[in-house]
Amino acid sequence: MTRRSLLRSIGVAGGAGAMFESMRALGLVASPQALAVPDFREPRAGDLAAANRGKTVVILGAGVAGLTAAYELGKAGYRCVVLEAKDRVGGRVWTVRSGTTETDLDGHTQTARFSKEPGSYLNAGAARIPQSHITLDYCRELGVPLEPLLAHNANNLIHGEGSDAQQYRTVKADYQGYVSELLSKAVDQGALDAELTADDKEALLTFLSYYGDIGDKNSGFAYTGSSRRGYEVEPGAADQEGVPLGPPPSLSEVLSSRLGRYLSFESRYTHAMTLLQPVGGMDAITNALHEAAKRTGAEVVTGAPVSEVRNTDAGVDVVYRGPGGKDTRISGDFCVATLPPNVMAKIPTNLDSRVTSALRFPEAFSAGKIGLEYDRRWWELDERIYGGITMTDLDVLNIWYPSHGFHTDRGVVVGYYTEGPYSEAYSRLTPVERERRALAQGAKIHGEKYRQGVQASFSVSWERTPHIEGGWVHWPSRDSGEYDLLNKPAGNVYFAGDWLSHFIAWQAGAIDSARYVVTALHDRVRNS
Amino acid sequence: MTRRSLLRSIGVAGGAGAMFESMRALGLVASPQALAVPDFREPRAGDLAAANRGKTVVILGAGVAGLTAAYELGKAGYRCVVLEAKDRVGGRVWTVRSGTTETDLDGHTQTARFSKEPGSYLNAGAARIPQSHITLDYCRELGVPLEPLLAHNANNLIHGEGSDAQQYRTVKADYQGYVSELLSKAVDQGALDAELTADDKEALLTFLSYYGDIGDKNSGFAYTGSSRRGYEVEPGAADQEGVPLGPPPSLSEVLSSRLGRYLSFESRYTHAMTLLQPVGGMDAITNALHEAAKRTGAEVVTGAPVSEVRNTDAGVDVVYRGPGGKDTRISGDFCVATLPPNVMAKIPTNLDSRVTSALRFPEAFSAGKIGLEYDRRWWELDERIYGGITMTDLDVLNIWYPSHGFHTDRGVVVGYYTEGPYSEAYSRLTPVERERRALAQGAKIHGEKYRQGVQASFSVSWERTPHIEGGWVHWPSRDSGEYDLLNKPAGNVYFAGDWLSHFIAWQAGAIDSARYVVTALHDRVRNS
Repeated sequence: MTRRSLLRSIGVAGGAGAMFESMRALGLVASPQALAVPDFREPRAGDLAAANRGKTVVILGAGVAGLTAAYELGKAGYRCVVLEAKDRVGGRVWTVRSGTTETDLDGHTQTARFSKEPGSYLNAGAARIPQSHITLDYCRELGVPLEPLLAHNANNLIHGEGSDAQQYRTVKADYQGYVSELLSKAVDQGALDAELTADDKEALLTFLSYYGDIGDKNSGFAYTGSSRRGYEVEPGAADQEGVPLGPPPSLSEVLSSRLGRYLSFESRYTHAMTLLQPVGGMDAITNALHEAAKRTGAEVVTGAPVSEVRNTDAGVDVVYRGPGGKDTRISGDFCVATLPPNVMAKIPTNLDSRVTSALRFPEAFSAGKIGLEYDRRWWELDERIYGGITMTDLDVLNIWYPSHGFHTDRGVVVGYYTEGPYSEAYSRLTPVERERRALAQGAKIHGEKYRQGVQASFSVSWERTPHIEGGWVHWPSRDSGEYDLLNKPAGNVYFAGDWLSHFIAWQAGAIDSARYVVTALHDRVRNS
Repeated sequence: MTRRSLLRSIGVAGGAGAMFESMRALGLVASPQALAVPDFREPRAGDLAAANRGKTVVILGAGVAGLTAAYELGKAGYRCVVLEAKDRVGGRVWTVRSGTTETDLDGHTQTARFSKEPGSYLNAGAARIPQSHITLDYCRELGVPLEPLLAHNANNLIHGEGSDAQQYRTVKADYQGYVSELLSKAVDQGALDAELTADDKEALLTFLSYYGDIGDKNSGFAYTGSSRRGYEVEPGAADQEGVPLGPPPSLSEVLSSRLGRYLSFESRYTHAMTLLQPVGGMDAITNALHEAAKRTGAEVVTGAPVSEVRNTDAGVDVVYRGPGGKDTRISGDFCVATLPPNVMAKIPTNLDSRVTSALRFPEAFSAGKIGLEYDRRWWELDERIYGGITMTDLDVLNIWYPSHGFHTDRGVVVGYYTEGPYSEAYSRLTPVERERRALAQGAKIHGEKYRQGVQASFSVSWERTPHIEGGWVHWPSRDSGEYDLLNKPAGNVYFAGDWLSHFIAWQAGAIDSARYVVTALHDRVRNS
């Protein structure tokens, strides 16, 4: 019985609280977060009996899942061959720098003209790592240096089309202020006496007084503004007490702005601070995984698209474009297919039709970004914005300011990070048109300076990116059999990727899935 | 008329909103934050007529205010002599590293035994810089590299004595959940119909539904928990959907915990993210100011306590302990005294008795910190805490985890950052006793591991620190004349420091005050 299954059985019997208490009693956890790393035992050199050593595993895709599988299997002595269709490893972990070139499915070729400064890059795909994610454990194991990724910043802007942008701090103060005023009034009037004891009421009113920075009962608990909104003139020396930004818009104006919808983002489990990024670009992780996999003996072949996968009596046969563009056949004992399901579905196989049908079930979802390199960090110099994300209902959805390289000469702003229909619209544009539109939209928030000093841009549309063809997938359902089916081996072929996890579009999902498959495959070999 | 006084007059006539609109119309601001840098024109080499060149300014204290004054006055050709009583510059900008030695007023000598790793330091005083503060402008001008200082982290703990610590995210989710539930009920029952239109009610209920992550009307708007609270088992691969941290405590339990009082901290103007710190320690700022001042010709003398300050007909006479411990007299045209007022008040002067009395008016306030170097970053490894501040009602008040050096071998945790009565209690202890108490308190939050692997500690009590004698000051009143009096020159003696600003205990206050005095002094000389 594994630790995980033990805990699951306690969980089933007594509920989550009982499970946690059991873990605490067993000394397994010191805090809730100690469970972040799922039950996994890395394969070891001595695991396999002589007869089972040297099995060959053909891994399709050198993204996070494929590289993790190669690295972990390599630890136990498997011979891993990783076939990567693109001419680089990393998959959707892709850091665009000076000189990066890519041709999309529409034939548009872009070459990034960013400066050669180490901070001048765009993490075109994965860009943040929550502190609970197993991704960090690999960063630690592989020596990838980390720095904070600032996703939430009180000086970021919230913008609704048709009105001026406001600082995040201002919107937050106004919502918390009015919510506190209204709830205090209701409590004071006895409207919630059925819900609250006298002690509850006293504690709640005390809480709301500072939560909302509101007046006391004599003032009707009125919210009339707060230094939390910001200052028009900051406090300073001598008699400069500061001029607070104020007064707030009316309650109706605040509510009708609907800007409060952006305030929950900071509380999402995967998006709350602290978030981290590797110093110098996210591909430090996949590069480190690549090197580590090679150290275990793995062979990683890039520019090698796969054209056929077959289960055989002995294992698997895989055909790929090898050296000189020639079809090359490789035989192995197993295959770990980490391609996106929509890409995998197009490769001829002899897999059961239920499997190939299941691969077509998850829907590829559009996502894209543009990096805009400026010759001047105007967001810091003029707007005192050091990192973070401005949110808007314009189709750019958000604007990211770099969390590194403060006060340097240049910086790459993410001019949009779109998904779904918004992203599809940008995908239909040429790179030049995307830049033009992103600048026009950003100028509605930041003014005309947003169009000035742009030195270079680079945009990605993931669904128009060869061999990837999507930002991530959505499962119309996980309960209709397809998800479970693909999480089981199809003969000697295993599937892995973030799309087979509950952390879709996160590196952690790819890692967890790879480890799940590594465990299943390794157990099978050990027990054979 | 300066820009500042113009804006003030508009502000007086039309209120803050009118002032801001005027500034916007004048193109002075692109966003509220553009006003962060107060009106200040740096002195220039050509400012002074020949007769006024080469004036000598004796500056007392080489903290942020004194060094800023020397640097700015030096730009116009003043001859500045900075007298610093301690054997180092920086004042309360003090980074303790391996080998730092200090003897306090009680005769306790500590030598920091931290490792020599660049991240192994304690910022014993100033430790965070808000992104609006002028401190950042000096970092930019002087080339001081910056990195984020993580002050708010969803994985930090909130701890009330007598109960288990909870993650910040959990407490926040529970308060926002129940507040949203209660207010939704009150709105739905019509209890606030006098305050809200039908449109308001609809917009508010929509807002609250995601602000609190609560159920819909059919469920009574019930808050029953949320993934925002965290997970007992994280989502992962295959069938591991994750086990959310189980049901929240009851409303009464949440309210009676009173832990919600810590949730407003993140919204304070000066404490909201983004906060920054210089890479490698806060003293990078004062070291850079020191070097910059020297480049303008300033002489900075350390180990030179001042024993007398006199206005003379020609300027000022200052006596200090010079080379070989001998009383040394220096004459200058002006003095800028940046010592803490309680320290300045003890120096013999011939100043007006109202001035010396005013210097005794602000009250020195106790503050202290301890740095604990561990041989293992257990907060990252075991608790997935990457930076931030745990808050408690124990007398340590908070525990800071380093925002840099993630995954390195060691790290310095701030085991307490206390002020007021809590700090006074720690101040009365010996350094060994302080460490013992800090570890005992921290163990109540983090468990026994908090006492294990401590390699070194270093504590500071600012009021027991020679020549500083306080964390910062409180003004019993700013309206009773003393504050205004000290913001004016006393003959040829000017006072400066954070204590003469509205940003007490911030470097920005010291800088703003120094710039205010530089402007006044320089205007006087130019107009003489």
